Parts: sequence; C-alpha cells; structure tokens
Amino acid sequence: MYQASVPVIKKMLTNLSAILGKGKAYAQAKGFDGVNLVQSRLIADMFALGVQIQIATDMSKGGLARLAGIEPPKFENDETTIPQLQARIAKTIEFMDSIRAEQIDGCEAREIKFAIRDNQFEFTGQAYLLEWVLPNVFFHITTAYNLLRQNGVDIGKRDFLG
Amino acid sequence: MYQASVPVIKKMLTNLSAILGKGKAYAQAKGFDGVNLVQSRLIADMFALGVQIQIATDMSKGGLARLAGIEPPKFENDETTIPQLQARIAKTIEFMDSIRAEQIDGCEAREIKFAIRDNQFEFTGQAYLLEWVLPNVFFHITTAYNLLRQNGVDIGKRDFLG
Repeated sequence: MYQASVPVIKKMLTNLSAILGKGKAYAQAKGFDGVNLVQSRLIADMFALGVQIQIATDMSKGGLARLAGIEPPKFENDETTIPQLQARIAKTIEFMDSIRAEQIDGCEAREIKFAIRDNQFEFTGQAYLLEWVLPNVFFHITTAYNLLRQNGVDIGKRDFLG
Repeated sequence: MYQASVPVIKKMLTNLSAILGKGKAYAQAKGFDGVNLVQSRLIADMFALGVQIQIATDMSKGGLARLAGIEPPKFENDETTIPQLQARIAKTIEFMDSIRAEQIDGCEAREIKFAIRDNQFEFTGQAYLLEWVLPNVFFHITTAYNLLRQNGVDIGKRDFLG
C-alpha cells in the first residue's frame, strides 16, 4: 500500500512542480504575467490552474493521511502565483515524507468513510487508494498539464511522467 | 498486482466509454457530426481525441499483457467515429477479462525492458505498473475527458470516477 501510494504521488507532484517552473519561465520569456496561467481554464465552468493544483495537493495529503490514520496539515488556499503553488507542492511533499511505510502498509481492509456534501462514501483502504485517491490526483495533475500545454508551454509527456 | 491493475483500468475504461456516449448524444442534440469531437485537439500539436483513446487502450492492453507475459491483441487504429472508439474500448476490456489474476500476481520483481524510439526503459513489474502504465492510462483518459468537457459536453468528475 505504501509503495503504491507515497512514492507514486510524490513523483507525480515533483514532476508537476517542474512543469509549473516551465510555465513560469515561458511567461517570463514571452513577457506576460505568470498569474495569467494560474487563472487559465479549459472552459469557463471548470476550475482554473491554481485550483487544480490546490485540489491535487489536497487529495494527496488528505488521502495519504486518511490511509495512515493521521491528520493532514491544513493550507489556506491563498496561492495566486506559480512560486506559491510550487511552495504548496513542496509543503505537501514534506508532509508525505513524514509518513512512515508502516503507517500505511496493512491498511488494505481498513474501512474508510467520508461525506462530500450529501454523498456518503465507503471504501476499503485499498479501494480508496486505487479508485479514489490515485484517479483524483492523476486527474488534477493531468488537467494542470493540459492547461499549461494548451497555453503554449513547451512540455511533453516526458515531463508529466518524469 | 492484479488488484492494482486490471480492475482499476477496467473501471476507468468503462467510464471513458460512457463519457464518449455522452459526447455522441451531445453532438446529436446540437446537430453536429460526432466526428468533429473525435478530431478535436486542445492545441494543434497535441493528439486529437481519437488518438488519445487509441493510446489509452494500447497502454492498457499492452501494459497488462507485458505484466502477464502474454501477447496483446493488435488493433488497426482505423477508428474515426465515437461508436468505433467505444468498440475499441470494449475489445480492450474483453482482452482484460481474459487475463487471470494468477497471470499477473507475483510479477512485482519481474524485469520489464522495452524501447521507444531511441529510449531504453527498464522497470521492475511493480514500477512498470505504478510509474508507467497507470500514469499513462490516466493521462490519456483525463485528456479525452478534458477535450469533451472543453467542447461543452455535460460531464463532471463523477463521470470520470464512475
């Protein structure tokens, strides 16, 4: 469970931070404000890049904390720039590094229950990781990648995979 | 290894097929050809929706076949419509259903080697699944979702997660 969670998500978040760095450099080279990238959306009723990264990190720290049976750190969701988003990713990775393998290993069958608005969710630990945490983390990181890619940032799938 | 691969990917591909169905219905309701969705891109130098789905299914059948030590079926990459893409997904799932758990379980340490153009890749079975197959499958399915979402199809993350 640990091998299928912490190192996998840490690698993806590390790649995400590097991709954001390329976005920042692109904005500088083109002479526009990187904040424009943070506020970019694929369509008006989807979350902007900044929120995609807030959710990707929330899913990472919240999901792993729930698997480990501990409390995740709380962040303020006040990031408006690329360096602030990268700092949020770094804080998330710092928290993940504090989780020991034995806190997560063996939680396959643990009952995981939570509610989002009116929806009740019930998972085993394993299903929670494989059908909730990982798909959500990959979803928001890929969407962040797609937003930067669509805006012309010179990144490829190699950057996504690391 | 089986639990972290076949059922996870099967669920995501099943959701993808349903999302494509919503795309087809949307095109019909709006009175345009669904092929326009298949040919849509986030930006001119990215793959179109149809290719995203070809790669998502190739990664699924190829990755799982490599883990199981068997040959995957070959598809012609000649799909041009949404129903043809859904048929490709169905054929991929049919192949996945033919893989027994004992063919994949226990392959954590198996050496996996392959080349893409000039790049040589070497993984253990576990790293291949967690750092290559799953990220690639999620990447292309999320990108397909984003393409349909950006084109106005009424889908949400609930459709992606299933």
